[in-house]
Amino acid sequence: MRKLGYLGPRGTFSQEALKIYLDISRKKAGKSGNEKSEKGEKGITSEGCKGRDVYDVYDKYDEIEVRDYITIRDMLFDVENGKIEEAVVPLENSLEGSVNEILDIMANEVDLKYKAEVVVVIRQNLLVKKGTSAENIRCIYSHPQAIGQCRKYISCNFSKAEIKPVYSTAGAAELVAAGEGNCAAIGSLVAAEEYGLDVYARDIQDGENNFTRFAAVSRHDSPKSGYDKTSIVFSTEDKPGSLYKILDIFNLWDINMTRIESRPAKKQLGCYIFFVDIEGHRDDDDVRDALTMVKRKTSFYKFLGSYPRYRI
Amino acid sequence: MRKLGYLGPRGTFSQEALKIYLDISRKKAGKSGNEKSEKGEKGITSEGCKGRDVYDVYDKYDEIEVRDYITIRDMLFDVENGKIEEAVVPLENSLEGSVNEILDIMANEVDLKYKAEVVVVIRQNLLVKKGTSAENIRCIYSHPQAIGQCRKYISCNFSKAEIKPVYSTAGAAELVAAGEGNCAAIGSLVAAEEYGLDVYARDIQDGENNFTRFAAVSRHDSPKSGYDKTSIVFSTEDKPGSLYKILDIFNLWDINMTRIESRPAKKQLGCYIFFVDIEGHRDDDDVRDALTMVKRKTSFYKFLGSYPRYRI
Repeated sequence: MRKLGYLGPRGTFSQEALKIYLDISRKKAGKSGNEKSEKGEKGITSEGCKGRDVYDVYDKYDEIEVRDYITIRDMLFDVENGKIEEAVVPLENSLEGSVNEILDIMANEVDLKYKAEVVVVIRQNLLVKKGTSAENIRCIYSHPQAIGQCRKYISCNFSKAEIKPVYSTAGAAELVAAGEGNCAAIGSLVAAEEYGLDVYARDIQDGENNFTRFAAVSRHDSPKSGYDKTSIVFSTEDKPGSLYKILDIFNLWDINMTRIESRPAKKQLGCYIFFVDIEGHRDDDDVRDALTMVKRKTSFYKFLGSYPRYRI
Repeated sequence: MRKLGYLGPRGTFSQEALKIYLDISRKKAGKSGNEKSEKGEKGITSEGCKGRDVYDVYDKYDEIEVRDYITIRDMLFDVENGKIEEAVVPLENSLEGSVNEILDIMANEVDLKYKAEVVVVIRQNLLVKKGTSAENIRCIYSHPQAIGQCRKYISCNFSKAEIKPVYSTAGAAELVAAGEGNCAAIGSLVAAEEYGLDVYARDIQDGENNFTRFAAVSRHDSPKSGYDKTSIVFSTEDKPGSLYKILDIFNLWDINMTRIESRPAKKQLGCYIFFVDIEGHRDDDDVRDALTMVKRKTSFYKFLGSYPRYRI
């Protein structure tokens, strides 16, 4: 029984990422869907679901148990404790940037690895209770990142509406469904369907290129595929030019850095830890040698996994 | 009449930063407080305050008008349009990291400069309506950054409480004051006082070192003080090693970089813009030469100001 987790509730983009990830891993394993499974005959159990329904969307997979979590922290701790094998978490969005909570937990609180990445195209929509008209919309609920992704649409069309950040886009849809028809939610079409809402406006996100990169987090990373990426986190000595010296190592070994993200070291203002993604796999000679040197030259170093790069 | 803005409502840490900033600028100008001003005789007008009260805390200053804003965007646009001269905005917190909204607006939407920086020690507290006991607390309101700063306290003490992110810590206190005694807010002692709440627990933030760095944003930056910092934002060409080449410029000129922050370029996943702070002033020879070179070697470049470094 393969056990996986994602950030719930039903109807979030994390659920979509999980579906894509399962499809990829099935293709790799060369398995086809369980065509014998009849409707209503679920291939997954509800054991781990904290009293929620197990999702029908996974019907076609044999021996998979999917659990939705309320917090990212609980989910990652369950991966560490072995209650689930993998968790699908959002890492960064092309408009809003990194999901800081994941970075901080991966750096400081768990010993887990990225095993795979998945990129999901994000399309935000304004969802309302059936019959709601624009002039009745007094407040807009959504996850802070979704609100951030639709700032221009909101300020052009609903500048007077009160913005109410909630924990997820699906949670926002749930609130609107339970409300009195004077609120709207920003969320996915799946959420509209799940909570019986009308889609007042489609594709309201700022910019054309709204993608979120998700990762499957596990206790082990992935073997070399030939088209890989490696993630590390480190802090440098508190000396001028110390970050430059680390990046110089990658330059010397001709390793391309695809991302650098700084987060506070939580010691004092002006001290940071750096999350770096590079091309290549820990089993590549140049990556191994460069990482050995980085480890020597940093005051804190943690390997976060090598995994296949996602092809959009 | 000097007109300033900060992110309201009353009782936020931004208000505290504004007070510190006013004290610094008065000290520099060699002025003492308007000791002649009697209680109730306000030295500031209410003209720009969108119907809110003007704050008594500024009584002692002559010829200052302070306006609180609901959104950072509106405030910065008012600085650009000349409705106010300066806005005090939060830039980064030592536990939670950068305030992304400010970075994105400064890079993409306004042509403003940092004129000064101020560092405020942040102490978060759990605030409740008078008479509320721990077992009655069903939900906790606060700004997402304050929630992030108190994650450990919440999960140890109120793991079952629903977390409700709102726009400000002061707004959270206001909601709790208006509620039925089954909610708590995370916020400042000033907010407790403003909204008549009890302090259920003091200093609940994770870690000892909780500081927020604020900036005064204006249409012009500051002249050289001899102990300065300079901020820029740029994007590099989409080639391997291009960020390294920029940092190499600072290395060649022996300029210390105090901060690097990446944000999405909002074009596609994997494209970033970089916010960099360096030591020195644009009028220093080496900084001027280095910035000229950075400008040449980047596809997008914006100077965000030189200003005196804050001494804690």
